[in-house]
Amino acid sequence: MVRITLLTDFGTEDGYVAAMKGVLASSPSSLLLEDITHSVPPGDVVKASRILSRYWRLFPPGTVHLVVVDPGVGTSRRALALRADGRYLVGPDNGVFSRVLLEANEVELVALRPSPLLASPESSTFHGRDLFAPAAALLATGSSLDALGDPVMDPIRLPEPEWTRLGPWAVGAVVEVDHFGNLGTNLPLEVTRGAGAVQVGEREIPFCRTYGEVGPGELLALLDSAGRVEIAVRNGSAAEHLGLGVGSPVRVRVGREEGE
Amino acid sequence: MVRITLLTDFGTEDGYVAAMKGVLASSPSSLLLEDITHSVPPGDVVKASRILSRYWRLFPPGTVHLVVVDPGVGTSRRALALRADGRYLVGPDNGVFSRVLLEANEVELVALRPSPLLASPESSTFHGRDLFAPAAALLATGSSLDALGDPVMDPIRLPEPEWTRLGPWAVGAVVEVDHFGNLGTNLPLEVTRGAGAVQVGEREIPFCRTYGEVGPGELLALLDSAGRVEIAVRNGSAAEHLGLGVGSPVRVRVGREEGE
Amino acid sequence: MVRITLLTDFGTEDGYVAAMKGVLASSPSSLLLEDITHSVPPGDVVKASRILSRYWRLFPPGTVHLVVVDPGVGTSRRALALRADGRYLVGPDNGVFSRVLLEANEVELVALRPSPLLASPESSTFHGRDLFAPAAALLATGSSLDALGDPVMDPIRLPEPEWTRLGPWAVGAVVEVDHFGNLGTNLPLEVTRGAGAVQVGEREIPFCRTYGEVGPGELLALLDSAGRVEIAVRNGSAAEHLGLGVGSPVRVRVGREEGE
Repeated sequence: MVRITLLTDFGTEDGYVAAMKGVLASSPSSLLLEDITHSVPPGDVVKASRILSRYWRLFPPGTVHLVVVDPGVGTSRRALALRADGRYLVGPDNGVFSRVLLEANEVELVALRPSPLLASPESSTFHGRDLFAPAAALLATGSSLDALGDPVMDPIRLPEPEWTRLGPWAVGAVVEVDHFGNLGTNLPLEVTRGAGAVQVGEREIPFCRTYGEVGPGELLALLDSAGRVEIAVRNGSAAEHLGLGVGSPVRVRVGREEGE
Repeated sequence: MVRITLLTDFGTEDGYVAAMKGVLASSPSSLLLEDITHSVPPGDVVKASRILSRYWRLFPPGTVHLVVVDPGVGTSRRALALRADGRYLVGPDNGVFSRVLLEANEVELVALRPSPLLASPESSTFHGRDLFAPAAALLATGSSLDALGDPVMDPIRLPEPEWTRLGPWAVGAVVEVDHFGNLGTNLPLEVTRGAGAVQVGEREIPFCRTYGEVGPGELLALLDSAGRVEIAVRNGSAAEHLGLGVGSPVRVRVGREEGE
Repeated sequence: MVRITLLTDFGTEDGYVAAMKGVLASSPSSLLLEDITHSVPPGDVVKASRILSRYWRLFPPGTVHLVVVDPGVGTSRRALALRADGRYLVGPDNGVFSRVLLEANEVELVALRPSPLLASPESSTFHGRDLFAPAAALLATGSSLDALGDPVMDPIRLPEPEWTRLGPWAVGAVVEVDHFGNLGTNLPLEVTRGAGAVQVGEREIPFCRTYGEVGPGELLALLDSAGRVEIAVRNGSAAEHLGLGVGSPVRVRVGREEGE
């Protein structure tokens, strides 16, 4: 059975997600529906693109990932369907697929076009129910991308915050604060080889392999589950402990000062 | 495979919903369980009836909708099972099915009766697990309404707040505030034909077809996804912007003042 | 189709649960994934063990219950797989299975061992995705416990708060506050036979069979859905009403004072 995953900023408390599920459940094939989350902060396309990055390729080929974080609904923004390394993705053209486009080896991309397959939306406020869910159901039941839309070469891509080399330091930033208060950075595995310590503000934090190397309540840096530097407090919240959030600079010593 | 949807005010954090899912999963047939939401405000039957209205008929015939928002558990309130336009619904008789009863073309309705099919509840506080879930599983696996209960002619119906005509105005009210802060009203499509503007307090708000017709942060009125007047802020919260909530009056100009 | 349930403290908003679902969905067999909750307070093993107690045996034999509330990830804590009365459970050895171990008639227990079946985790921070989910998928598709680990005789067990007899009183405590503000205690059914009243602080609360025996807003004590004494307010929150929480003493009169 084909799975369709649902990622939205709708909350569940109004029945909007439920309406989408009803549309998907009405597909002639039996589809398995999987909630990812519906508590993306309203309109937060950056956050949605990061969440998507955590799971899209862990699902098997053929899975359809439906992503409806769509502050531009009712404007002229395009609606996209992608095939990326065998998985399908459907959602608005607002950058939410930026990381998938970076991470996939093979991508095909179309802009959904009005067609007898996709009935004209009965409302201009609820494309999740009236446009994206029907498109997802069609892909899940064997429609080709070509049948749904026309090729697109210029999808919107969000800028990725980059890290830089500055003297003996690799300088990056906090790019995400998770549910546990862990601070995810954009500093990759490569800068940590031989890294003595991680600096945040004036603090030096030991670089460890696991949480168990420090005591409960203590700060550490380690590689997160995607292979990037994370700052954490064992059994606590680094965000609270340090008073930091998205955008805070983080640096890793990767060489010597001149003269050292 | 038959789907059973679950709408409750249980939250998920105690395992009450999980207990219901366990009962449903123990049905001899393989059933697909779909969460709608479990964050209905405790006991809020009106809200639950509105949520239900958004999805019950979008699921295919044969679906069983389980609704357990039941402030009267342990009192003499009846337990209902409905067949409405081919979908089944199970839940307490407290008005939660009011809108289904209005919206369905064909309804059969029974009050569940104690029977060998429905074992007597082991507790008088958890009918979701002990009464409603077993009844839903039976309907999903082919039981008839007749096998579960006796016909009922007088289910509880919640009053629907009505709009009225007052001189050149159609006067309604906010009946729902959604996750995005959009203000849903009880003013239907028909009052908007030729409507020049929508008034809330002293403010005039343009009536638009889509969010894209105003700038980010600006107020507009439009038809919501159910065909009623909604007041929104593009990429923002109308509830916060206007300081309004359920019950606030809203009016649409549908004619001329005398003398105009 | 085999079901796998998911209980975590991950929240859903980062995509960690989604990553686990992706791993499970990639199993060669078609598995049904059921969310229990992902809003266990971070690291709250006691709460997780209580939630688990509410549902683990209500699911049919063969179900796999995945439990990832794991403040000790990255330390030397063991990873467990259990077979309890025909259901499988997978999670960390931190006491989260205490109640299952008490409640089950038959238990087999192994500590997961590194093996070609369970690839070495690519990260030391996300055992949910890299260790527990793969083990759960293997059990769901027919692996034996023996194939995954070595027998364990000394799993961690949390102390159960006990009630005591003190003169004419059975004295227990609030052990849980649920979503509705109901106060769950550790006083069992047996102390309530012939119980005249329940005392909390200086207050006497009537012992009732159902909520309907008191008026809205009034306090009552009754048996909860697991057969223990619960203190509730009809259509309200006993926790708020009484200002009580976990640990507050509760007593039930079960005999006469000397001299009465």
